[in-house]
Amino acid sequence: MSYDRAITVFSPDGHLFQVEYAQEAVKKGSTAVGVRGKNIVVLGVEKKSVAKLQDDRTVRKICALDDNVFMAFAGLTADARIVVSRARVECQSHRLTVEDPVTVEYITRFISNIKQRYTQSNGRRPFGISALIVGFDCDGTPSLYQTDPSGTYHAWKANAIGRSAKTVREFLEKNYKDEMVASDEETIKLTIKALLEVVQSGGKNIELAIMRRNEPLKMLEPEEIEVYVAELEKEKEAAEKKMKT
Amino acid sequence: MSYDRAITVFSPDGHLFQVEYAQEAVKKGSTAVGVRGKNIVVLGVEKKSVAKLQDDRTVRKICALDDNVFMAFAGLTADARIVVSRARVECQSHRLTVEDPVTVEYITRFISNIKQRYTQSNGRRPFGISALIVGFDCDGTPSLYQTDPSGTYHAWKANAIGRSAKTVREFLEKNYKDEMVASDEETIKLTIKALLEVVQSGGKNIELAIMRRNEPLKMLEPEEIEVYVAELEKEKEAAEKKMKT
Amino acid sequence: MSYDRAITVFSPDGHLFQVEYAQEAVKKGSTAVGVRGKNIVVLGVEKKSVAKLQDDRTVRKICALDDNVFMAFAGLTADARIVVSRARVECQSHRLTVEDPVTVEYITRFISNIKQRYTQSNGRRPFGISALIVGFDCDGTPSLYQTDPSGTYHAWKANAIGRSAKTVREFLEKNYKDEMVASDEETIKLTIKALLEVVQSGGKNIELAIMRRNEPLKMLEPEEIEVYVAELEKEKEAAEKKMKT
Amino acid sequence: MSYDRAITVFSPDGHLFQVEYAQEAVKKGSTAVGVRGKNIVVLGVEKKSVAKLQDDRTVRKICALDDNVFMAFAGLTADARIVVSRARVECQSHRLTVEDPVTVEYITRFISNIKQRYTQSNGRRPFGISALIVGFDCDGTPSLYQTDPSGTYHAWKANAIGRSAKTVREFLEKNYKDEMVASDEETIKLTIKALLEVVQSGGKNIELAIMRRNEPLKMLEPEEIEVYVAELEKEKEAAEKKMKT
Amino acid sequence: MSYDRAITVFSPDGHLFQVEYAQEAVKKGSTAVGVRGKNIVVLGVEKKSVAKLQDDRTVRKICALDDNVFMAFAGLTADARIVVSRARVECQSHRLTVEDPVTVEYITRFISNIKQRYTQSNGRRPFGISALIVGFDCDGTPSLYQTDPSGTYHAWKANAIGRSAKTVREFLEKNYKDEMVASDEETIKLTIKALLEVVQSGGKNIELAIMRRNEPLKMLEPEEIEVYVAELEKEKEAAEKKMKT
Amino acid sequence: MSYDRAITVFSPDGHLFQVEYAQEAVKKGSTAVGVRGKNIVVLGVEKKSVAKLQDDRTVRKICALDDNVFMAFAGLTADARIVVSRARVECQSHRLTVEDPVTVEYITRFISNIKQRYTQSNGRRPFGISALIVGFDCDGTPSLYQTDPSGTYHAWKANAIGRSAKTVREFLEKNYKDEMVASDEETIKLTIKALLEVVQSGGKNIELAIMRRNEPLKMLEPEEIEVYVAELEKEKEAAEKKMKT
Amino acid sequence: MSYDRAITVFSPDGHLFQVEYAQEAVKKGSTAVGVRGKNIVVLGVEKKSVAKLQDDRTVRKICALDDNVFMAFAGLTADARIVVSRARVECQSHRLTVEDPVTVEYITRFISNIKQRYTQSNGRRPFGISALIVGFDCDGTPSLYQTDPSGTYHAWKANAIGRSAKTVREFLEKNYKDEMVASDEETIKLTIKALLEVVQSGGKNIELAIMRRNEPLKMLEPEEIEVYVAELEKEKEAAEKKMKT
Repeated sequence: MSYDRAITVFSPDGHLFQVEYAQEAVKKGSTAVGVRGKNIVVLGVEKKSVAKLQDDRTVRKICALDDNVFMAFAGLTADARIVVSRARVECQSHRLTVEDPVTVEYITRFISNIKQRYTQSNGRRPFGISALIVGFDCDGTPSLYQTDPSGTYHAWKANAIGRSAKTVREFLEKNYKDEMVASDEETIKLTIKALLEVVQSGGKNIELAIMRRNEPLKMLEPEEIEVYVAELEKEKEAAEKKMKT
Repeated sequence: MSYDRAITVFSPDGHLFQVEYAQEAVKKGSTAVGVRGKNIVVLGVEKKSVAKLQDDRTVRKICALDDNVFMAFAGLTADARIVVSRARVECQSHRLTVEDPVTVEYITRFISNIKQRYTQSNGRRPFGISALIVGFDCDGTPSLYQTDPSGTYHAWKANAIGRSAKTVREFLEKNYKDEMVASDEETIKLTIKALLEVVQSGGKNIELAIMRRNEPLKMLEPEEIEVYVAELEKEKEAAEKKMKT
Repeated sequence: MSYDRAITVFSPDGHLFQVEYAQEAVKKGSTAVGVRGKNIVVLGVEKKSVAKLQDDRTVRKICALDDNVFMAFAGLTADARIVVSRARVECQSHRLTVEDPVTVEYITRFISNIKQRYTQSNGRRPFGISALIVGFDCDGTPSLYQTDPSGTYHAWKANAIGRSAKTVREFLEKNYKDEMVASDEETIKLTIKALLEVVQSGGKNIELAIMRRNEPLKMLEPEEIEVYVAELEKEKEAAEKKMKT
Repeated sequence: MSYDRAITVFSPDGHLFQVEYAQEAVKKGSTAVGVRGKNIVVLGVEKKSVAKLQDDRTVRKICALDDNVFMAFAGLTADARIVVSRARVECQSHRLTVEDPVTVEYITRFISNIKQRYTQSNGRRPFGISALIVGFDCDGTPSLYQTDPSGTYHAWKANAIGRSAKTVREFLEKNYKDEMVASDEETIKLTIKALLEVVQSGGKNIELAIMRRNEPLKMLEPEEIEVYVAELEKEKEAAEKKMKT
Repeated sequence: MSYDRAITVFSPDGHLFQVEYAQEAVKKGSTAVGVRGKNIVVLGVEKKSVAKLQDDRTVRKICALDDNVFMAFAGLTADARIVVSRARVECQSHRLTVEDPVTVEYITRFISNIKQRYTQSNGRRPFGISALIVGFDCDGTPSLYQTDPSGTYHAWKANAIGRSAKTVREFLEKNYKDEMVASDEETIKLTIKALLEVVQSGGKNIELAIMRRNEPLKMLEPEEIEVYVAELEKEKEAAEKKMKT
Repeated sequence: MSYDRAITVFSPDGHLFQVEYAQEAVKKGSTAVGVRGKNIVVLGVEKKSVAKLQDDRTVRKICALDDNVFMAFAGLTADARIVVSRARVECQSHRLTVEDPVTVEYITRFISNIKQRYTQSNGRRPFGISALIVGFDCDGTPSLYQTDPSGTYHAWKANAIGRSAKTVREFLEKNYKDEMVASDEETIKLTIKALLEVVQSGGKNIELAIMRRNEPLKMLEPEEIEVYVAELEKEKEAAEKKMKT
Repeated sequence: MSYDRAITVFSPDGHLFQVEYAQEAVKKGSTAVGVRGKNIVVLGVEKKSVAKLQDDRTVRKICALDDNVFMAFAGLTADARIVVSRARVECQSHRLTVEDPVTVEYITRFISNIKQRYTQSNGRRPFGISALIVGFDCDGTPSLYQTDPSGTYHAWKANAIGRSAKTVREFLEKNYKDEMVASDEETIKLTIKALLEVVQSGGKNIELAIMRRNEPLKMLEPEEIEVYVAELEKEKEAAEKKMKT
């Protein structure tokens, strides 16, 4: 087939191959999960089994865009850095002009528009990243958005991106309950449980970021995560015991 | 065949393949219907069976361009966002310079010209969207326009775009009557009936926007739609009963 | 054959394929006829069998460039709109600088030069339209010009473009007589008769624009056209009767 | 052979194919003849058998560049128009700066340089025209130049371009005599005779432009041409009669 | 396979081939090792077996970016020079604007962003270098970063790039111990031992740069390196003797 | 072989094909000879067998760049004109800035640099000309330079370019003697003799330009050339007679 | 293999083919040798067997960049001229800004950076030259640098470029001794001996440039070279005689 797949044009059946190939790059990235609670938003990321001597401080896949917005991504790390850094500049410039922080949707749309532009001009390839963007707006509304290389974005109650996104999303669909996310603790646990579905060797390969209304972003310490994991195991055993009886 | 289909040039028999391929992308989009009444314009859109946890607030395919114009689209969401955002800027800038809102045709032509430009310069692909643009002009005339990726646009009494556009259009052609649209209620019902032809599981997968002369745009609540659907079913039963007797 | 037909360069035997392919797009357009009378110019266009619910107000293929010049086109509607809009701006700017309206040839040359430029630069495809441009100059001379995608233009007494251009042109060559066009009525009738050669179901699929010296453009109402069609049929019957006797 | 003939680069044996292909386009154009007399320059052009209803006013292939220079061309009409219009601007600007009209060679070189530039930059195709440029310089010298798509130009006593250029040139080489062109009448007759070699149905398919020293350009009326044609026939008959006796 | 590997676009399975090919160029470069100690950072580079008459002063693969940051690279020397020189300008300009030297991460991110940009614009190839960037921040923190042609970067306790990077990294993973790097001498020895794994003929083919907190960079003299090598051999013998007993 | 010969890049064995193909175009040009005497420089050019009616005034392949420098070329006439015209502007601008005419080497380097630039940027083809550039510097030194499409130039005592360059050069190498060029007459005769080796039908197909120190350029009249040719023949006969005896 | 070798991108195994092909062009150039002495730097170049009538003044492959720096090159002469001329401008501009001449390394880096830039942007081919750059810095240090088409450069005690570079370099490696270059005479002789390894017919095909500390560059006269060659032969004979005895 002589159709040129290398520049971002339509295929005979209406596909943009470069965009779809970029999505393959995303599928190679580590899994990230986001859950929007009532008073909390939680992001969990599978830590890549980093080389033994790697300083895991810089392997983090969760980064702040502004005080009230943060983002997890899957895909090409270098691409993500460019997107994050443009988004940060926009956040600052928004504060300066409007004297208010950006809303989560505003900055999601900003990022998505950059991505779309790279799918419509031949001289450039699309960005090879998907992202979960979470945060609180001025009025206290928590939000969770997901964007992909095409520049499309949607709001979610809970969603996943990256390598095992499909498995995690199915788990969430089965286990997410609206009443659950009223409780902050339940929301955090759901995030961890979803990740544990696809992450091996438990809590030490998980990174967790929590943002509560009017509080700064908090990255959980490994020990804190282990506490949750242990608790979850206890609950599971209890449930199994209950099942037997 | 060595003909290069990847840039927007004429094929030996006068086709612009990239534009036709873009239309394939439109045919993958969800169905949208527009009906122009005497004192009302109605847009109905099939809601994609959103993933269970998706926040359907952001999946809406109907958006306002200005107080008096709104638009439904089918095709690439990210492309649509770019077009919508340029159109909104134009509407504002029109208000500032002319001190009057745009007419529906003015903004339709503006959007179509952007689209045409992307079909005539090699460095860029066409926009992968069709749109229904509706609204009231200053003088109170209701309008319904349809544009496609080639940059062509036409005015319609009623029309459809997206996946099942052909089926819906045939239904409209059979059932639309000029006296019908003098009644606001009949106009709304026609829109819903047309959509129900192709949308399964009834009213809950339908999104409906209504604009009356000198009134702001109104998105119907799911319950309101269900009322119409129920009413339509009753009418249908009554009609069938009548048929038997 | 490895010759690249996709950019506008010469083929080994001196053809510009892209220009010829664009002419194929023109041949897909609806037929338009122009006849230049002594005190009148007439344009007739075959109305595409519009979808039942289409608002035929926007399907018009005849548009004014200035008070004294109008144009019918065949080919890509979106391309035509761009050309028309640039021509209108030129007409206005001419009035402002020269304090006189453009002559018909001036604006024809302007349009043709735009077209030529798109046949000589690789980054762009030619315009996919032919046009009949008619009007009166300041001195009262009526004119009829025809341009094609190559940017060539010529003046005509009567000519046709689009799908059935060849048939219509042959009809005109057989039936056109110089004394005929001294009468306004005869000129109008010739235009309609030429179109009826290729348009089925008579007057209701015909659009007709008439411009008399020092009078604004007049689009004929469907009823007015039907009167002419009826008259023509009567004449035909009379002629046939006469033949028999 | 995988050599790319579509952009203007050298072939392995030193050819510029695009330029040669453009020359094929010229060979499709109607024949034009130029003869330089002592006090006169004459251009003759074969009129294309115009469609019956074409207004032959606009089919003229002879056009003035300035009061003292005119040009006949063969090849793409639209390309010629662009070249002519740039040359006219140059003539006016020359008058303004130098306060003298251009010489025939000056404007020929100007036109040829434009053409050369289009043979050396990849983004553009060469111009598809050859031209005969004639006129009088300030000092009263008559000139005849010929340019082709490569941008080469030469001065000639008599030459031809277009479809039957070769036949006409051979006729001229056989019949041209230096003493002949001292007489204005003989010069005109030579031009007509040369054209009649390749133009069928005699004088009515010929267009003739004459420029005498310090006189404006004169386009001959068809009747005037017919007078010459008749005269030439009489001479021919006389000659044949003489031959017999 | 017709997929174009020559411009930096996504392959069907989400790879950027040009970036991966650039990494092959890096793998041809000489090995470099970096170890971050508590109060010291050490870079060791395998000296290419330079031609006998080469002046090894200019073959150095370690260069200072600023007083507090230096860098070792593997890959194309000419590319590295460009990157180093841009980084130096940035360091100076940072000092001028912020009145503080750059942090190691800041300049690493700067270099990585340059690299990323060259992977996303078609007109340019990626940079063919990987780098180890080390130094002390204002607050005295030692850092070791590694970047590759894709523009990704990470912090490490110890790492290697270039020809034998894999072997050296494995050696480091087996032998590195956190308590080891508290001692400056142990840190230096670890670096040398790691390099000796892949460098033949011992110390004379090794280049070593050491930076202690608040001290300028120090390139070790060959003799100093030989002292370390001798010491390491003695230790090894002692260890082996101990093993036997 | 899939190697792209159409843009000016290196072939696997280090050739620039476009430059070599341009040299083929030069080899199609008419032969030119240059001989540098002690007080004289002579250029001789083979006149192309011009069409009978061509005005040979414009076929000259020798042209002045400034009062003290002239140039003969072989290859594409249109390319040569562009180069000549840029060189002339440079000569004038040099006079204005430096208040001295250019040296022959200065303007040769200027021309060669233009040519080199067209061999290193992909969007343009090389110039298809070689040139002999001759003249006197301010200090009275005569010079003869030769440049080719690659932009290389060298000084020569005597050299040839164009169709029969090789034959002529071999003749010159055999017959040129340093003492010969001390005499102006001998220098002229050598040039003519060299050309007669390859030009048929003697002096009338030769064009000759002579420049003496502090004298303007002199184009020899055909009669003057014939005198030399006759003289050369007499000498030849005498020599042959002498041989026999 | 469909890999495109025509633009400067990475091959699957990390090569830049265009750069390597350019190096083939260098290998076709005449051999050049450089030797750095204690108080002297010497450049020797093989003179191409110039055509008999060529003025060897312009065939020199050694040229001054500034009073204290000169350069010999191998490869495309026209490319070298461009590089030399840019380097000279830089030398002058350096003197003006810094009020000191450039160091040899400074100008070498400048030249190498130009070269690197031409290996990383697709629209241009690399420069087809290697160079030996020699000179004295302000502080009296002699330097010898070598650069190649990739933009890499290194300092050398002695090195060679061009056709027989490998043979010459091997000779130098065998015969160069550090104590040798303390003597100016020995340094010159080593350069000549190295060249004589690959240059036939002895001293007359050699060009030699010598620069001593605080002295201007000196090109050796052919006779001076012959003296050295004779002396070297005598030494050789003496050595051979000694060997026998």
